Amino acid sequence: MPSFDLSLYLVTDRRLSQGRSLEYIVSEAIKGGVTMVQLREKDCSSLEFYEQAIKLKQILTTHKIPLIINDRLDIALACNADGIHIGQSDIPYKVARNILGYEKIIGLSVENMEQVLLSNDLDVDYIGISPVFSTPTKTDTAPPFGIDGIREVKKICRHQTVAIGGIHLDNAKEIYQAGANGIAVVSEIMSAKDPCEASIKLKAELK
Amino acid sequence: MPSFDLSLYLVTDRRLSQGRSLEYIVSEAIKGGVTMVQLREKDCSSLEFYEQAIKLKQILTTHKIPLIINDRLDIALACNADGIHIGQSDIPYKVARNILGYEKIIGLSVENMEQVLLSNDLDVDYIGISPVFSTPTKTDTAPPFGIDGIREVKKICRHQTVAIGGIHLDNAKEIYQAGANGIAVVSEIMSAKDPCEASIKLKAELK
Repeated sequence: MPSFDLSLYLVTDRRLSQGRSLEYIVSEAIKGGVTMVQLREKDCSSLEFYEQAIKLKQILTTHKIPLIINDRLDIALACNADGIHIGQSDIPYKVARNILGYEKIIGLSVENMEQVLLSNDLDVDYIGISPVFSTPTKTDTAPPFGIDGIREVKKICRHQTVAIGGIHLDNAKEIYQAGANGIAVVSEIMSAKDPCEASIKLKAELK
Repeated sequence: MPSFDLSLYLVTDRRLSQGRSLEYIVSEAIKGGVTMVQLREKDCSSLEFYEQAIKLKQILTTHKIPLIINDRLDIALACNADGIHIGQSDIPYKVARNILGYEKIIGLSVENMEQVLLSNDLDVDYIGISPVFSTPTKTDTAPPFGIDGIREVKKICRHQTVAIGGIHLDNAKEIYQAGANGIAVVSEIMSAKDPCEASIKLKAELK
């Protein structure tokens, strides 16, 4: 099983990039200490998704940072990504694992405590606690876990965890303190005037 | 390389099914003589796509009819489909072939004569001549080939061909006569009051 560091996990959203390329933002975020990058695309052709993935893979490989593809197993295979992140309405975990094998990372979003418990029966590499706070970035989410929810998850969950949803500089520290292995951010880096500086500041909250 | 029969190729579109399940329509179409089925889904979750694919695969396997998945290589792998059909804005053919291997069928849509010529350099299993006529089913298509276009394609193309776009009972025969190995239909079967009878009638045009 590959090793990885969930501590500062960037999830892309090109709608929030203010016209800047994902390559630029990801490169700056890496300088600032991002430890993992998930490419999430919902409204482009498979060819565009593939081409974007190839570009990010080149950048990330140089820095030995894993590239995770959201949902699309085929794009992950096509660009030789380090893994995929799936939600509850994506291809079922066990099917994905059969195709990808154990050399690749598979993360699974959980939206409530029942799904956290069910994930204990799966050999996922990490779970995404989603959402920790309510967020305008994603509109189809379940009720937020909150900080207390993270503490509850940590008590019953055997997997590494990354929290996602509404995470910003002013609430990052309490998420780490509640026991999450990492924070996943979208707009805090994607929309930052200086994505490198935004990443440095988030990383500093870890300490 | 698997053998297959392009002669009457059903491409699904659940928006045209008038509330009937794809399983029902596909089952009826098989009774009527459909020789190949492509599952095309553009607006559903990966889980729904996967579950729909599994259902069709069960039906089609019983009748030894190939299931082809549009675009989504991962869904094809997940349901053990017989192949995929890709367009010019999907994952590039060579990448797809590397992942799928030669045990699976790969069809490629071509939208102009230049793409037909380029396909001669690829070991695709068939090409889809798209569109042969203008069609309301797909709105993002290139200018139609027309019947003369099919004859031109046959002169320069080394692959098996299936024509798609605006094909109905009243123009099916001239497409076969122009040299296409098959016709791909969407609404003519999907929206037919009796999909079995519609398939029988289309099949009769072959003779």
